[in-house]
Amino acid sequence: MKVAKFGGSSVASAEQLRKVANIITDDSDRKAIVVSAPGKRNEQDTKVTDLLIALGEAYQRGESYEEQLEQVVARFRDITNELGLDDNVLSEIKEDVKEVFASDYSDAFKIDAIKSIGEDSLAKVLSNYLKSLGLQATYLNPKDAGIYVSDEPGSAQILEESYQYLYKLRDREEIVVIPGFFGYTKDGKLVTFSRGGSDITGSIVAAGVQADLYENFTDVDSVYCVNPNIVKNPKEITSLTYKEMRELSYAGFSVFHDEALIPAFKASIPVCIKNTNNPNGLGTIIVAQKETSENPVVGIASDTGFLSLYVSKYLMNRELGFGRRLLNILEDECISFEHTPSGIDDLSVIIRESQLTKEKEQIVINRIKNELDPDTVYIERDLALIMIVGEGMDSTIGIAEKATSAFAKANVNLEMINQGSSEVSMMFGVKASGVEAAVKSLYKEFFE
Amino acid sequence: MKVAKFGGSSVASAEQLRKVANIITDDSDRKAIVVSAPGKRNEQDTKVTDLLIALGEAYQRGESYEEQLEQVVARFRDITNELGLDDNVLSEIKEDVKEVFASDYSDAFKIDAIKSIGEDSLAKVLSNYLKSLGLQATYLNPKDAGIYVSDEPGSAQILEESYQYLYKLRDREEIVVIPGFFGYTKDGKLVTFSRGGSDITGSIVAAGVQADLYENFTDVDSVYCVNPNIVKNPKEITSLTYKEMRELSYAGFSVFHDEALIPAFKASIPVCIKNTNNPNGLGTIIVAQKETSENPVVGIASDTGFLSLYVSKYLMNRELGFGRRLLNILEDECISFEHTPSGIDDLSVIIRESQLTKEKEQIVINRIKNELDPDTVYIERDLALIMIVGEGMDSTIGIAEKATSAFAKANVNLEMINQGSSEVSMMFGVKASGVEAAVKSLYKEFFE
Repeated sequence: MKVAKFGGSSVASAEQLRKVANIITDDSDRKAIVVSAPGKRNEQDTKVTDLLIALGEAYQRGESYEEQLEQVVARFRDITNELGLDDNVLSEIKEDVKEVFASDYSDAFKIDAIKSIGEDSLAKVLSNYLKSLGLQATYLNPKDAGIYVSDEPGSAQILEESYQYLYKLRDREEIVVIPGFFGYTKDGKLVTFSRGGSDITGSIVAAGVQADLYENFTDVDSVYCVNPNIVKNPKEITSLTYKEMRELSYAGFSVFHDEALIPAFKASIPVCIKNTNNPNGLGTIIVAQKETSENPVVGIASDTGFLSLYVSKYLMNRELGFGRRLLNILEDECISFEHTPSGIDDLSVIIRESQLTKEKEQIVINRIKNELDPDTVYIERDLALIMIVGEGMDSTIGIAEKATSAFAKANVNLEMINQGSSEVSMMFGVKASGVEAAVKSLYKEFFE
Repeated sequence: MKVAKFGGSSVASAEQLRKVANIITDDSDRKAIVVSAPGKRNEQDTKVTDLLIALGEAYQRGESYEEQLEQVVARFRDITNELGLDDNVLSEIKEDVKEVFASDYSDAFKIDAIKSIGEDSLAKVLSNYLKSLGLQATYLNPKDAGIYVSDEPGSAQILEESYQYLYKLRDREEIVVIPGFFGYTKDGKLVTFSRGGSDITGSIVAAGVQADLYENFTDVDSVYCVNPNIVKNPKEITSLTYKEMRELSYAGFSVFHDEALIPAFKASIPVCIKNTNNPNGLGTIIVAQKETSENPVVGIASDTGFLSLYVSKYLMNRELGFGRRLLNILEDECISFEHTPSGIDDLSVIIRESQLTKEKEQIVINRIKNELDPDTVYIERDLALIMIVGEGMDSTIGIAEKATSAFAKANVNLEMINQGSSEVSMMFGVKASGVEAAVKSLYKEFFE
């Protein structure tokens, strides 16, 4: 049994839904389907979820939301018309909205319920369409599927018991179409996952039914080994591990909402990323373990927007608790950090620039000066991190040499190097201005 | 004005003291002399300070200490006899010991007073000898020099006011000979610095008199750029900065008691390491700043006896405070750490093996498991750290490439790499078995 999840661009129009239906028909193992809300049909388009958010905001401001509601309805009307389906879903949307706003739930829950209408309606439309094609298919509400979640609007967490309910889906004869993005609390309130949460639903359903494969259909052929905006037509990754995917998605790989992988990861379900527009392409498969190849490097990730907080103090390493007290100050100020490369008497803390605003910067520096009495403390902005990722790297001699020689060839100075004993990845810090040249040079070194 | 400090081997015998006297006579700027206690004359010999410690221990056990006392006296008798000096110092030693044990001071202070007799007596002998050569010289007790310290037996800290008293030594016409290793509390109790503390006295006196140079006479020609036990006849370092010295002495460079540098460092006094047995050699000079040369790497240090505590947890970097809580556990257990190289979802803490005993290991691992709920936690022992040190490294492209290629050539796998944004040093972790091959290869790469 396979679970197939279709993302926003895959269900954006009647034309796309035809491709989806073909994909489902093509493989009788595709029995559980999870869908997003319709996404953009072109650059200028607006995602249905964004229309629904605007609708909710208008309601909260006490303004009319008729215009936004009509836009949502119009999107679905286009689809049902073109696919020749009945238009019951259109009146259901209007009723749903009325009902939500009339309920006694607090605003946060109302907004969640409104946001979920895109996925919910699309699931209804798709199951109708599959039936119209002669397939046995049913729309399945997350409540009926057994997707129970915590009471946290906008960032629901799955409850463990859900998995035993979902397992029963294996007994179903027909194809079930489940809207992604939301579940229900034990007392029946609708709550959404964080944004991108349809991936989470897909992963949860795959774990619940113990799928042989979780297929994540999107609009790219595969995961590339490097950002295609930096290197043209880069190599595709055919297979990578959960850990590698996680390291890659950390820095610059946005194909996948990486937290979504957790349920599949925990249940050891292989995940396949495929293109709805090219379903016969190999795609990229993500597995728990794989054989190491001759070139253990699977990808190069890069991201800008980091800074380094540098602190030095003579004999720092004799001071028990120095590092801990420094991290304590950051935690007090709610700043999370990425890495802490160190010398003997100095420590650099790598932080995302968004975490340390200019206002907080002075507070943090003053606290460090007052509480830790350092010799030097300063902040260097405009840093980029580049990661070389691959599970086999730890047993291969010469990876660091290849990588550092690529930086030297690109004439880019290394501000930082950080490699722990796991060696799934090797991290390099450079000035943001050098990142493109460095990534191109690394690609040449490892993949050409 | 120069401050010259002579170490244990430089004052171990009459023959050595003749060299010392020649060195002092040779340069009329050498006006403040600081001395250690007589060290070993040959491999089998015992240092006078160790004899005195044994004497103190015999006293504490309530046993006779006559044998140890006679050994100490004999060492000084040999010297005074051979130099043709009066032997008053011998009876003074016996009286000192009697007086100390008769005092009402607590045992810790008595032991400190006994331990200091080696330096104190040698200072008296040397000043007598200088006078016998026709020089104007005076023995100066640390109390009269103004070396005031905190009330911590065995690990005294200098009191700031000492420096203003010491500054007055500049007005003296004659050469002053000051015993190293101890000072006095404000209420007159003798207290010693930590072991190797004559270097500390020298550094304090140099800072106090604002010396043009602090000369540290020892038994090596200079600081070598790599451990001579690993590479035969390595290059000598002619000049290095305080920071470089500190990084080098951290891992494997034992020429210098590095904490001793602090007073000289704070007062920006240049420090010169010279050989009593070859005083015309260039030696190694340690300064606050120096010009960068073409090869910015000044030395390669290495040390074994490290372990890595590896912790991984999926989505670790989203957990605010994870790193801090890990360091907190270590601090609770009084374990200081060296470095914390990290990936996205893993963290390695590098710790000296002496810090984490087998008993503590289980406690720490259990606490991490219970309090941090990691996916994996384990300890890898038998690691070595290798440091490439040099201040100019941060502005030179290609250093990392040269270093990592040396490891690859030596066929040594890199377990860790750690380089902060200061880049006075670059740290590599390897298995202890690979350290010699790696260091040899690095030496070849950077110095041959």
